[in-house]
Amino acid sequence: MAETARIWTAALLVIGDEILSGRTQDKNVAQVATWLNVQGIRLREVRMVADDMDAIVEAVNTLRARNDYLFTTGGIGPTHDDITVDAIAQALGVGVVIHPDARAILEGYYATRGGLNEARLRMARVPDGASLIPNRMSGAPGIQHGNIFIMAGVPSITAGMLDALTGTLEGGLPVLSATVGCWVAESEIADLLRETERLHDDCQIGSYPFFRDGRVGANFVIRSTSAAILEDVSAALTTGLTALGREAVAGGI
Amino acid sequence: MAETARIWTAALLVIGDEILSGRTQDKNVAQVATWLNVQGIRLREVRMVADDMDAIVEAVNTLRARNDYLFTTGGIGPTHDDITVDAIAQALGVGVVIHPDARAILEGYYATRGGLNEARLRMARVPDGASLIPNRMSGAPGIQHGNIFIMAGVPSITAGMLDALTGTLEGGLPVLSATVGCWVAESEIADLLRETERLHDDCQIGSYPFFRDGRVGANFVIRSTSAAILEDVSAALTTGLTALGREAVAGGI
Repeated sequence: MAETARIWTAALLVIGDEILSGRTQDKNVAQVATWLNVQGIRLREVRMVADDMDAIVEAVNTLRARNDYLFTTGGIGPTHDDITVDAIAQALGVGVVIHPDARAILEGYYATRGGLNEARLRMARVPDGASLIPNRMSGAPGIQHGNIFIMAGVPSITAGMLDALTGTLEGGLPVLSATVGCWVAESEIADLLRETERLHDDCQIGSYPFFRDGRVGANFVIRSTSAAILEDVSAALTTGLTALGREAVAGGI
Repeated sequence: MAETARIWTAALLVIGDEILSGRTQDKNVAQVATWLNVQGIRLREVRMVADDMDAIVEAVNTLRARNDYLFTTGGIGPTHDDITVDAIAQALGVGVVIHPDARAILEGYYATRGGLNEARLRMARVPDGASLIPNRMSGAPGIQHGNIFIMAGVPSITAGMLDALTGTLEGGLPVLSATVGCWVAESEIADLLRETERLHDDCQIGSYPFFRDGRVGANFVIRSTSAAILEDVSAALTTGLTALGREAVAGGI
């Protein structure tokens, strides 16, 4: 426990006009964050940009340099507004090539669906030097280049690509969490939260208030890489709430 | 129409461990994006960071410098993990002070709710020089400092703060949109989309495919600041789809 384990980090870049216009509610941040945590990798930062070459290039180069992994979602379809592959190739300073395996996958997929036309062939284009991430959902694969993982924007297709990557990335200890709930205004027990966090190493306590059935309450989420610390902190918080005349609800409300 | 109108831009910074851990599904991006558009302001970029001083300071200083407006959500509650005000004050190089009006608002709000304690008084702290954004929901106000608007993380409270700001920010022409739907694989009509966009100024066409009731289809969203252009492009797209033997569905599917 005295030993400091290496922390593996990732960034996520969400690409698409439809996110910034408010038309589409993003669901990939929560999905990727949850998946990463199981891999022992922490999502450290997210950026969302339009289908804009300069904006994508800037974000890709900043994020890939300071994180172990960079994931992107969106902009890899067959239409003119899908420019993610071109932008990432430009960020990497490499050309764009047709990946022969991707072409073969698309030929197979579209054999009974009208054939492989020019637009569909766009989905076989990758930054030179890339490998593929399988996609059981719709033929068109995701793309890996170095520490960059290029995925679809449609959440169900993204899920399939994450599934294909499960267990293949090096990570560290997953962050575990435990929740203690209480029917109390968080502002009444703020000192207890601060002190409990301060007295325990390798733990963060987040406070998430709510207003439900006419009453205020809050869930306190404890995070740590150690199950023993989680247990200690949960017990300390429960004892502290009880001492203040409050009932702690294990698992949250 | 030949005249190029000034485009007003905004960035949004979403602050909170709960977003990056995947525990909470963000809803503020879509909400703020939609609201901004009505004000004639375009959401150009979004970043999401943890409750981390350095990460917030870096993002605030980058985003406020290159956009007309910067909005933040999250981290302005009463507990130890709420550090947004301190981080923004540090980014601005100013101190943190108790705003007298905020204090008065909180005293009134908590008069019948157990009184104003030290934790609750934290919600009256602002970067020196700030003014307040009213919040009808829960007492604690939002904060404005220069071109930065500091709002709550809970979406219903954020909504109240946006409502208070409606019509107060200078903007340009709102982006209008029209949707044409079609039961077609987008990859079969990619050329039509590209050419239609190319032949019309001040318009973007986004293609959003779906798989529903066992069939593939797509909605094509046309965006422009001109209602006349929207109408022209919708008509051109409809004519083009019809010429390809496809039925265009006005308003989308």
